[in-house]
Amino acid sequence: MNKERERTVVMSEIMVPQMANFLGNVHGGWLLGFLDRVAYVCGARYCGLTLVTLSVDQVFFKEPIYVGELLTCYACVNYVGKTSMEIGIRVTTENLKTGHIRHTNTCYITMVAIDKEQHPVPIPPLVLHNEDEKRRFNEALERRQMRLKLYKNKDPS
Amino acid sequence: MNKERERTVVMSEIMVPQMANFLGNVHGGWLLGFLDRVAYVCGARYCGLTLVTLSVDQVFFKEPIYVGELLTCYACVNYVGKTSMEIGIRVTTENLKTGHIRHTNTCYITMVAIDKEQHPVPIPPLVLHNEDEKRRFNEALERRQMRLKLYKNKDPS
Amino acid sequence: MNKERERTVVMSEIMVPQMANFLGNVHGGWLLGFLDRVAYVCGARYCGLTLVTLSVDQVFFKEPIYVGELLTCYACVNYVGKTSMEIGIRVTTENLKTGHIRHTNTCYITMVAIDKEQHPVPIPPLVLHNEDEKRRFNEALERRQMRLKLYKNKDPS
Amino acid sequence: MNKERERTVVMSEIMVPQMANFLGNVHGGWLLGFLDRVAYVCGARYCGLTLVTLSVDQVFFKEPIYVGELLTCYACVNYVGKTSMEIGIRVTTENLKTGHIRHTNTCYITMVAIDKEQHPVPIPPLVLHNEDEKRRFNEALERRQMRLKLYKNKDPS
Amino acid sequence: MNKERERTVVMSEIMVPQMANFLGNVHGGWLLGFLDRVAYVCGARYCGLTLVTLSVDQVFFKEPIYVGELLTCYACVNYVGKTSMEIGIRVTTENLKTGHIRHTNTCYITMVAIDKEQHPVPIPPLVLHNEDEKRRFNEALERRQMRLKLYKNKDPS
Amino acid sequence: MNKERERTVVMSEIMVPQMANFLGNVHGGWLLGFLDRVAYVCGARYCGLTLVTLSVDQVFFKEPIYVGELLTCYACVNYVGKTSMEIGIRVTTENLKTGHIRHTNTCYITMVAIDKEQHPVPIPPLVLHNEDEKRRFNEALERRQMRLKLYKNKDPS
Repeated sequence: MNKERERTVVMSEIMVPQMANFLGNVHGGWLLGFLDRVAYVCGARYCGLTLVTLSVDQVFFKEPIYVGELLTCYACVNYVGKTSMEIGIRVTTENLKTGHIRHTNTCYITMVAIDKEQHPVPIPPLVLHNEDEKRRFNEALERRQMRLKLYKNKDPS
Repeated sequence: MNKERERTVVMSEIMVPQMANFLGNVHGGWLLGFLDRVAYVCGARYCGLTLVTLSVDQVFFKEPIYVGELLTCYACVNYVGKTSMEIGIRVTTENLKTGHIRHTNTCYITMVAIDKEQHPVPIPPLVLHNEDEKRRFNEALERRQMRLKLYKNKDPS
Repeated sequence: MNKERERTVVMSEIMVPQMANFLGNVHGGWLLGFLDRVAYVCGARYCGLTLVTLSVDQVFFKEPIYVGELLTCYACVNYVGKTSMEIGIRVTTENLKTGHIRHTNTCYITMVAIDKEQHPVPIPPLVLHNEDEKRRFNEALERRQMRLKLYKNKDPS
Repeated sequence: MNKERERTVVMSEIMVPQMANFLGNVHGGWLLGFLDRVAYVCGARYCGLTLVTLSVDQVFFKEPIYVGELLTCYACVNYVGKTSMEIGIRVTTENLKTGHIRHTNTCYITMVAIDKEQHPVPIPPLVLHNEDEKRRFNEALERRQMRLKLYKNKDPS
Repeated sequence: MNKERERTVVMSEIMVPQMANFLGNVHGGWLLGFLDRVAYVCGARYCGLTLVTLSVDQVFFKEPIYVGELLTCYACVNYVGKTSMEIGIRVTTENLKTGHIRHTNTCYITMVAIDKEQHPVPIPPLVLHNEDEKRRFNEALERRQMRLKLYKNKDPS
Repeated sequence: MNKERERTVVMSEIMVPQMANFLGNVHGGWLLGFLDRVAYVCGARYCGLTLVTLSVDQVFFKEPIYVGELLTCYACVNYVGKTSMEIGIRVTTENLKTGHIRHTNTCYITMVAIDKEQHPVPIPPLVLHNEDEKRRFNEALERRQMRLKLYKNKDPS
C-alpha cells in the first residue's frame, strides 16, 4: 500500500515509588531504559521491522523527575539512513496536583533494522513534508557526522 | 483559577516478553495492574487529589494481547459523584509490523478522593459540554446504581 | 479415574514494601494481579486444563491493605458452564503483630479452558454436594446472566 | 490474653515463566528468597515481633521445580530459644495438569526477634503438646548445637 | 587445551531501596538469591558446564546489610568431586561515604554439573597448587561428609 | 585523612533470561540502567558524596550481548571538575562455556555531587599520577567541551 506509516509516538508513564533512587527521585537508570523502549516503539511503528539500539547520545538530565509525576515522551523519527534511523525524544513531566508541566530532557537514539539472521536491512526512506521536518533531518545528519568521527577515533569503533 | 482540568489521558506501553503468561501472550494480571494505573492518572489529572481505587467492574477480555504489540489505553472521566468518580478505559493494541489495530477491552474503574487522614473529600463536579459526555455520564450512573445494589446485598458491602 | 478434583485453594502472601502505592498501602493494581493468579490456580487445579481469564467482575476495595499484613485468598469454583467457570475469591488480611483478621474483599473471576490452538474446550461439570454449593452455583448463574446482558449491549461484546 | 498463637503457616505460589533459570526450571535463587519469606511469616505469626533471619541451614535441592507447578510450603516453629527460633519448612509441588504431588525440599531457618534499636528481645516459650512436637524440638536443638560448633570455629562466628 | 580455567570470581552490587525489608535494611531473601547467582558464575566459569544448585549450607547473617552500601562477594571453587563442586563465598560490604568495609557473611553452596537430559556429568578435577588451596579442599570435604550424614538420616535424603 | 580514595570499580553480572528483548538477547534498556548504577558506584566511592546523573554520552552498542554471558564493567573516574566528574566504563562479556571475552561497549557518564538541598557541592580534585591518567583526563576535557557546545545550542540547555 502507498499509505505512509506513522512517524511519531507519545508514551506516558506515572512515576511510582518503585522507581526511586537514594534521594527519593526517579532513578536515571530507569529513565534510560524507558527512553530506549520509546525509541523502539517509534522506530518500529514507522518501518514495521525488527530494530536494535545502535547508540544513545547526549542524554542530558536537566532537572530531577519526582515520584508522583506523569512522565510523557514525544518521540519522532528525525532521520532515516540506509539501515539506521535516528529517533528524537522530548521528555516532559506533569505535576498531577497542580497541572504544571516541565520540559526535563531531550535525547537522540539511533536504531538499526535487522533481519532474522541479525543482518542490517534497508528502512523505507523518510519523506520530508515541511520545513520543520527538513530542519530535524539536517540536525540529525550533523549529529550522525559527529558520531561517526567520535566512534572512528576511539575505542568502541 | 477557572480553567477546566483535563479529563482524559492516553497511555501506551509496548508488550515485552516479561509480561507473558504460560501461553506466551500478555498476562491478564499484568493488564489489570496497568488499567488501575491508567485510571489513577486519568482521575488524578482531573481533580489534582489523592485517589484510591474503590472498584473495578466488568473487565472483559475479548481477545488475547500479544507480546510485541503496542497497547494503548484511552481513559476518560465519565462520571463524578460527591467523593468518587468513574473512569472508563478503552483498550486497543497495535501490531507494529502491520499497523493493524484491534479493540480488545473496555472497562470501568471507580476511584475515591481522600485526604491525608484517608477520609473521602469532595471532587469538583463534572461539567458536561455535549451529548456524548451526557450519554457517558448517564451510562455511568446506571452502572453505579447496579453496583450499589450488588454490593448492598452481598458479602463485600 | 473417578476421583473428584480439588475445587478450592488457599493462597497467602506477605505484603512487602515493594507493593506500596503513593500512600504507603498495598497498591490495588498489585492485588488485581494476585487475584488473577489465585483464580488461575483454583480453576486449573479443578480441571487440569489450560485457562485464560475471560472477565473480572466487581472487585470492590472495601478497605486498605497494609504493608506487613499477611494476605490470604480463599478461592472456590462456584460454577462450571460448558467451557467456562466462575471462581469466587474471599480476601482476608491478618495483622501479624496482633493476630487481628479483617475481611477486605470478595470478587468473582471467570476463566475459559482452551486447547493448544486456543479454542475453548469442555470443562468437567461440577458435582454439587450440598446446599452451600448449590447456593453458590445459583448466585454465580445470576451474575453470569447479568454479565451476558451487560456485554451484549455494550462496546466489548 | 492466654490464647496460644498459631505456630504454623501454609503458603502456596504458582511457578510462572518469570522465575525460570537457564534450563527453564524454577531458579534456586528465587526459591531461597521465598523460603525466607515463609519463615518470616511463620515466626512473626507465632510471636508478633519483628524478626530478622539469623541463618539458613541445609537447603537441599533434591529435584527440579517446574514452571507451571503449584509450590506449597508447610512451615512450623520447631524450637524457641531465648531470643531466636527455628522454623522448619517442608516444600511440595503439585502438577496442576495431573494433580501429582512431589516432596522436593525440607529446610530450616533460624530467626531472631529484635526491638526498634535492633537488639534481641525474648520470644514467648514454645509449649510442647505432644510427642511429635517434642521430637521436632529435640531435633532442632541438635541442629542448633551443630550450628554453634560450626560458626564458632569458622570465619563467620 | 591445557590452560587451567579461572576458579574465582568477584561480584559487586549496590544496595538499592528496592531491596529493603520491613526494617529498611537489605532483605535476607534478596541476598540468598544473589549468593546463588554468584556461586553459579564461579562454578560455570571453572568448568564451562551447565550447573544446578544442589545445596546451600550455613548461610549465617552475622550483621545487617544497609541500603546504599556496596556488597562484594569473593567466590572460589573450594572442592570438586566427581559431578559436584563446592563454592565458598565471602561477603563484604563497603560504606561508600566512609570507605569502611565490613565482613558480613561466609557461605558454601554445592552445585552439580548436568547435561541436556539433566543427568550429572563429570567436572574436571581441581588441581591444588598451594597450602591454602589444600586447606580449603579439606575443609570442604569435611562439610561434605557432614552433609551426607545429615541428608541420609533426614527427610530430604 | 590524607589517604587517596579508590577511583575505579569492577562490577559483573550474569545475563539471565529476564533481561532478554524480542530477539532473546540482552535488552539495551537494561544495560543502560546497569551502566548508570556502575557510574554511580565508581563516583560515590571516589568522593563519598551523594551523586546524580547529569548526562550519558555516546553509548554505542557495537555488538549484541547474549543471555548466559558474564557482563563485566571496568569503571574509572577520568575527570573531576568543580562539582561534576566524568566516569568512563569499558564493558566486556565473557562466554562462560568457552571463556571467550569480547569488548562490547565503552561509554562516558557525567555525575554531579549534591548536598541535602540538592545543590552542587565541590568534589575533591583528581590527582594525576601517570601519563595514562593524564591522557584520560584530557580526552574527558575534550568531551566536556563538546558537550557544553552541544547543550548550549540546543533544546535541553
